[in-house]
Amino acid sequence: MGYTLQKTLRRPYAQALADVRAALAGQGFGILTEIDLTSTLKEKLDIDVAPETILGACRPDLAYQALQVEPSIAAVLPCNVVVRSIDSETTVVEAFDPSTMARLVDAPGVGKVAAEANDRLTAAFTTL
Amino acid sequence: MGYTLQKTLRRPYAQALADVRAALAGQGFGILTEIDLTSTLKEKLDIDVAPETILGACRPDLAYQALQVEPSIAAVLPCNVVVRSIDSETTVVEAFDPSTMARLVDAPGVGKVAAEANDRLTAAFTTL
Repeated sequence: MGYTLQKTLRRPYAQALADVRAALAGQGFGILTEIDLTSTLKEKLDIDVAPETILGACRPDLAYQALQVEPSIAAVLPCNVVVRSIDSETTVVEAFDPSTMARLVDAPGVGKVAAEANDRLTAAFTTL
Repeated sequence: MGYTLQKTLRRPYAQALADVRAALAGQGFGILTEIDLTSTLKEKLDIDVAPETILGACRPDLAYQALQVEPSIAAVLPCNVVVRSIDSETTVVEAFDPSTMARLVDAPGVGKVAAEANDRLTAAFTTL
């Protein structure tokens, strides 16, 4: 059983990253954190990997609803959306599937929030 | 089945947060991201919640090993360590349990990395 939503985009990485940001904003997701994985691995380990960024996406209203019923859910917030270059014309966008949260967390209310987050992420992916 | 490692600390939030940072550093975890959840919810929703911070902890060598065998694992990196005030003398520290990754991801090699991450986080918690 998968734990991510994934889509392959036939466009260069920089364009894909810009498009993903716009698509997330269009569904009300703010970006709370951002990790340039390529720079991080170069700096810490002196290893070269293809361009990759981890965006920490959050809809504060959904996060707050989930935290109200399950404080521990903070351990899987925000929702990561990863943009990874495959080659010069191909980029993968991959998000942590919010319905995975509902599989991990047996708390009433979390399923509803996860379903809405899933709908909104899926809608954002559809525009890409 | 739980998805976090949790410990209750009998000390004020600010001290606990400083101690958690030191404990993670002692096990080679860098902090790649940091979310002041209290400020974020105040700013975005004008809601007041108790002090809480989500630290994104990462050991680059472990992250790189996991990414080599399972690129999608980026969707659950870095490992969140949450510090949450309960009252003026009580703070909870709670981390995403790396062994949860191994439950989600059926890829050879991920289990080994998750076990090492688990050992190191557990060691960090033991010092708290």
